[in-house]
Amino acid sequence: MTEVPKPRSHGRLAVSASARPRELMSDAPRIKGAFTVRVVTLFPEAFPGTLGLSLTGKALAEGLWALETIDLRPFGEGRHRNVDDTPAGGGAGMVLRADVVGQALAQASIGTPPDRVRWPVIYLSPRGRPLTQTTARSLAQAEGMTLLCGRFEGVDERVLEHFGVQEISLGDFVLTGGEIAAQALIDATVRLIPRVLGNQASTEEESFSHGLLEHPQYTKPPVWEGRAIPEVLHSGHHANIAIWRRAMAERLTKERRPDLWRAFCAQHGRNPDEDQEL
Amino acid sequence: MTEVPKPRSHGRLAVSASARPRELMSDAPRIKGAFTVRVVTLFPEAFPGTLGLSLTGKALAEGLWALETIDLRPFGEGRHRNVDDTPAGGGAGMVLRADVVGQALAQASIGTPPDRVRWPVIYLSPRGRPLTQTTARSLAQAEGMTLLCGRFEGVDERVLEHFGVQEISLGDFVLTGGEIAAQALIDATVRLIPRVLGNQASTEEESFSHGLLEHPQYTKPPVWEGRAIPEVLHSGHHANIAIWRRAMAERLTKERRPDLWRAFCAQHGRNPDEDQEL
Repeated sequence: MTEVPKPRSHGRLAVSASARPRELMSDAPRIKGAFTVRVVTLFPEAFPGTLGLSLTGKALAEGLWALETIDLRPFGEGRHRNVDDTPAGGGAGMVLRADVVGQALAQASIGTPPDRVRWPVIYLSPRGRPLTQTTARSLAQAEGMTLLCGRFEGVDERVLEHFGVQEISLGDFVLTGGEIAAQALIDATVRLIPRVLGNQASTEEESFSHGLLEHPQYTKPPVWEGRAIPEVLHSGHHANIAIWRRAMAERLTKERRPDLWRAFCAQHGRNPDEDQEL
Repeated sequence: MTEVPKPRSHGRLAVSASARPRELMSDAPRIKGAFTVRVVTLFPEAFPGTLGLSLTGKALAEGLWALETIDLRPFGEGRHRNVDDTPAGGGAGMVLRADVVGQALAQASIGTPPDRVRWPVIYLSPRGRPLTQTTARSLAQAEGMTLLCGRFEGVDERVLEHFGVQEISLGDFVLTGGEIAAQALIDATVRLIPRVLGNQASTEEESFSHGLLEHPQYTKPPVWEGRAIPEVLHSGHHANIAIWRRAMAERLTKERRPDLWRAFCAQHGRNPDEDQEL
């Protein structure tokens, strides 16, 4: 068994995980209800990264959420702390070992509820279900989450089964590792935590709950490079503005996202091939 | 007109953009063929971030690709360098001004080919077409790309039209800003540049070109927490291993990604509802 380092904490009020048994953790310092993210990674120095800037960074410093990294390397085997090995059955690449990742996930689970709804354990992987705004909203309801960042060809499947790990994909593309994907998932989630966005609370999510892409936006100056803001937006006629925006949103969705458009039409009893007249 | 700062460069061989006219740039130091990414952002300190670590970081230091940030703030209006204003026609949030973003994109375009195939200009936005491995492959064929990171409610539509900006989305979720999305896009792209992955060149993309999610992976130890590696993987029978892996990939795709599964079946003349027997 490797000597287990303490997770590195970011933000004022992070939980200090230790090797102490779970029942003793209840008196560890923790702001009641502060959403906590634990990240198991070979690159702890990647965090908080962009999450430490702007509104997520401010909220992190204020303790509205907490971030801890658990370095996978010290759990590795032998002198070189190897974390991976060749795939059983052959093939290219290297696979993260079940025993190594298992120890890191066990460490990450200290002081967390075993209920995966209260504390999801997530592996970022192109094999996962795609991240959606609905997923982010549901994650933001949890007490915290543990994220496993992969590298190489993947992770031994047994560790995913053993720990009830949920696989989430950022999309149908391949990244060098899970760290950037984890940051995207964390950003999408923590910005939904009350007070993180502060006064900049925005209606942008609503565009997804309507199932349409957002309409075009315009601001000053009124004319730029010979291009004027569409007249209706200056009309002050709120109903006409709403109709115009809705028509633009529908047109854009139809053009760029036939999948969303078909789903939207099915939901609203519309014919997906009808032409929208403005 | 704002005094224009030089972009900050990461990596050894980055282009040094300046206010000099485009035709004078041809003799600027540049490794022939080094893919260059220019990022227009309010948070230049977010870069290179995770991209500066691991294989992408090594390749950046070796000049296999170059990264430059262009701070949007100095292009802002007035004493406070305001970059945004309220949406024309009303509504929540703030919109990045066409004139401010336009100046930054003009600066970013210095020394780049105007052909958008040779040098795409991309705005990361949930309104865009979803990033796919095919997009990443096509971007990796370009000479470089300029990425615009949004914040707030969006960007004035006119600047997107004027500069022929392509919108790309990471997925159906909302991020605080475009910086993490830009990093994901950059990672997915630069890892496809020859020699960036070095000897770790992997077949993982192939799973997407087959249109199926990747089969489960296993490595040592043979038994972990009472869980054995599936027997077939120890058989040494390559054909059986390939059949097993394919069946697992199909089952996983059917379960988790009905959309990919239907597309795969359509392409291979298969019935999407058939049961795959192992």
